[in-house]
Amino acid sequence: MLTRTSAQSLTGQLADRFSERIRNRLLPPGARLPSVRECARQQGVSPHTVVAAYDQLLAQGLVEARRQRGFYVRDSGPAAGPPPDSAGPAPALAPAPLVAADASTLIRGMFHRPSDKPQPGMGVFPPDWLESTFMPAAVRRVTSGKALQELSLQYGEPAGDGSLRRSLSTRLAAISVPAAPEQIVTTIGATHALDIVSRTLLRPGDPVMVEEPGWALEFARLEALGMRILPVPRKADGPDLEVMERYCTAGDAHKPKLFVSVSVLHNPTGYSLTPGSAHRVLQLANRHDFHIVEDDTYSHLAPEHATRLCAMDGLQRTIYVGGFAKILAPNWRIGFVAASPALIGRLLETKLLATLTSPALFERALAWCIDQGQLRRHAERVRVRLDGARGRTVKLALAAGCTLASEPAGLFGWVDTGVDTDALTQRMLDEGYLLAPGSLFHARRPPTTLMRINFATAQDATFWKVFARVRDQI
Amino acid sequence: MLTRTSAQSLTGQLADRFSERIRNRLLPPGARLPSVRECARQQGVSPHTVVAAYDQLLAQGLVEARRQRGFYVRDSGPAAGPPPDSAGPAPALAPAPLVAADASTLIRGMFHRPSDKPQPGMGVFPPDWLESTFMPAAVRRVTSGKALQELSLQYGEPAGDGSLRRSLSTRLAAISVPAAPEQIVTTIGATHALDIVSRTLLRPGDPVMVEEPGWALEFARLEALGMRILPVPRKADGPDLEVMERYCTAGDAHKPKLFVSVSVLHNPTGYSLTPGSAHRVLQLANRHDFHIVEDDTYSHLAPEHATRLCAMDGLQRTIYVGGFAKILAPNWRIGFVAASPALIGRLLETKLLATLTSPALFERALAWCIDQGQLRRHAERVRVRLDGARGRTVKLALAAGCTLASEPAGLFGWVDTGVDTDALTQRMLDEGYLLAPGSLFHARRPPTTLMRINFATAQDATFWKVFARVRDQI
Repeated sequence: MLTRTSAQSLTGQLADRFSERIRNRLLPPGARLPSVRECARQQGVSPHTVVAAYDQLLAQGLVEARRQRGFYVRDSGPAAGPPPDSAGPAPALAPAPLVAADASTLIRGMFHRPSDKPQPGMGVFPPDWLESTFMPAAVRRVTSGKALQELSLQYGEPAGDGSLRRSLSTRLAAISVPAAPEQIVTTIGATHALDIVSRTLLRPGDPVMVEEPGWALEFARLEALGMRILPVPRKADGPDLEVMERYCTAGDAHKPKLFVSVSVLHNPTGYSLTPGSAHRVLQLANRHDFHIVEDDTYSHLAPEHATRLCAMDGLQRTIYVGGFAKILAPNWRIGFVAASPALIGRLLETKLLATLTSPALFERALAWCIDQGQLRRHAERVRVRLDGARGRTVKLALAAGCTLASEPAGLFGWVDTGVDTDALTQRMLDEGYLLAPGSLFHARRPPTTLMRINFATAQDATFWKVFARVRDQI
Repeated sequence: MLTRTSAQSLTGQLADRFSERIRNRLLPPGARLPSVRECARQQGVSPHTVVAAYDQLLAQGLVEARRQRGFYVRDSGPAAGPPPDSAGPAPALAPAPLVAADASTLIRGMFHRPSDKPQPGMGVFPPDWLESTFMPAAVRRVTSGKALQELSLQYGEPAGDGSLRRSLSTRLAAISVPAAPEQIVTTIGATHALDIVSRTLLRPGDPVMVEEPGWALEFARLEALGMRILPVPRKADGPDLEVMERYCTAGDAHKPKLFVSVSVLHNPTGYSLTPGSAHRVLQLANRHDFHIVEDDTYSHLAPEHATRLCAMDGLQRTIYVGGFAKILAPNWRIGFVAASPALIGRLLETKLLATLTSPALFERALAWCIDQGQLRRHAERVRVRLDGARGRTVKLALAAGCTLASEPAGLFGWVDTGVDTDALTQRMLDEGYLLAPGSLFHARRPPTTLMRINFATAQDATFWKVFARVRDQI
């Protein structure tokens, strides 16, 4: 909030707010600032104050004025001081592709807390939901005595800690995914696992099918790697098979090599795949000879007996990706990939080329948490708590005039606000809330009235009161 | 060693030895097995035993016989059991490019211990050289009390732990590399840092200059990313400038965008860049507008006042990469990249797309080790110990009839054995020793009589006795 009692002038406060947002890419390069009149109305200040603030941003090199069209965020940050005498000019940097720039908006946003308020756009549970006594106990086990030196002073096993791979193999068997420990490679979170899969199976320019709406980071990563993204609409029972069929029959040059899918508790809709749809997806994959990578990031929140492509297919042409950021410790960065014996060696090679090994200490600690049954009981507790939060959040969202675009399930709600959520996001930042607008979940970022909410962090009446007020001003 | 007293037949022992070596890629796809006569002589068994062992390998699908030419390792592993009924055939996998397969030989080798003997081909210090009391103390600090939950239950700072980036900034200032904490991004080891740099600055097909001989993993990674490698001979004072000039003036389509260099204690030669050569490299980079990434992996073993391109250039067109696997804890996987303010944001984006954040616990622990001066004193102790080991190893190598291809310095010696080191490597594996043959350090892997030795692990008279005996049989 701008405040008249602050030691800083209103102009200074307003300029600082925009400049911080530009630096954090919450206002990405090329974005247009609100018109002077619009901004003055939104902030409750005089147009003169806004003009002076925009002039400061101009002087700082953060924005540029385009005649008759207003102020736009510049493509790169300000110059970084004078170059030393000994060196020539720095080489010209090719501008990053637009999508990557957009993705960074989201990604920076993921880590940006505009205030101490609960953040409804967050992608993970608040830290206090994940607190436990067994996690510190597990860490003590691997850091006391000789274990610490043993697990630190050598590179460790290329495929990842053996005890963790055995635990994961057992866990996968429980959801009917047949993977021996030798078919599992640990990674730096599920993100790294997905990166390894696409680097191994695809060459730049290759067409790849991705569910839409879908996880923005996946679109951005594939774009940055130079892949051609073929969006597949995600429906309640599974991906749109007609669209997939059309991609597969569009000619050899366009033949998709890979399909990226979040089958269970799909992000952002919460949809889960039905057995019938799974069967047809696999038939299509067999007929048209493509791989499928199944991202099971939300497996710890999933209902029992959820349908997984990897279980039905037996890891023949499917590749399983999992992680623990949503249930145990996001910063431990533990994920893994499981695949056929023929493929796992190539995935391991890509891991080694990209990062060599992964830290074994946390892997060993996680194995203990799984083996003791601690993680399973913890996940049960979190699920029960999430069920309660989901009920409360849905009521508040409906009372605030939203509708639900999908049946509420898992961590995320897919909510229709009735107004453009890109505009809403900018205005809610002024109030200290970071939203996840629907455009972030599309490859081409069209404007939409949808947004994703986190059921755990959006069960807050104050947020919805502010939300309703701001929305009515748009 | 094959042994006649074993419960297993000589044939079985010999077949098992080859099969293990093929599975570990120490005999890569396409490699030729020794002729029956040669193998019988080497192993001291009858030709009949060798024929029977090769037949077992044929039956296991690990090798193929080529008429009149002998036995060759097959391109892929054996089939992995019958596929389940529900699924069609797995999609055909494109064979990995030859260089990647070769690199995996090296990489698997890095992690493979053929015996408990000291391994002269190793790339790191033996664990007992790195043992310390301050490392466990640092880990206790970050894992006790609230710190553990704080550093585990959230994704953490995108650029890496703030306290570590401040420590690194100070450390870089001490070697005259000007990098504010905001110009530093932590990574999963130096390997990840180099991967991030090439993914950010290069597109597939781009030409990139790499020193030769050089670190095999760098060649393999660039090849796997589809880059065009331009090898630059590394000489005692620096890279071959005439060759670089020729690449730069070969026409716009071939214009190199990046030069990858280990300036100080170059791997495998131990060479360090002179100020004059550094100046000319930077002039060339300015004239032909390419970036330079300087891999300073061995900085903790380096002499004071070593010349670094990043210091001379002031991080204008240079990018600094460092790591701690060679001095503190290889499995902590901590590296970092420092670059100009204009570039660091793009490097950060690539990190986030590839792995999201990196584990902050180890980063915070490392910061403490640096800030307390513990790491600096530890590095001094290791350097003194290494000086002693280097002296002893050089004497043994010379006594065994080797010559030194470069002035001994740092961790590695570049040694001329007088015989083909690929053949030597295979034979020394029979004796339980893994070597690092010279071919691994070249983009195209020509046969060579050179090999890299680790001064810390090769100061063992027994090894050199076995070495001399085996070499004389080649």
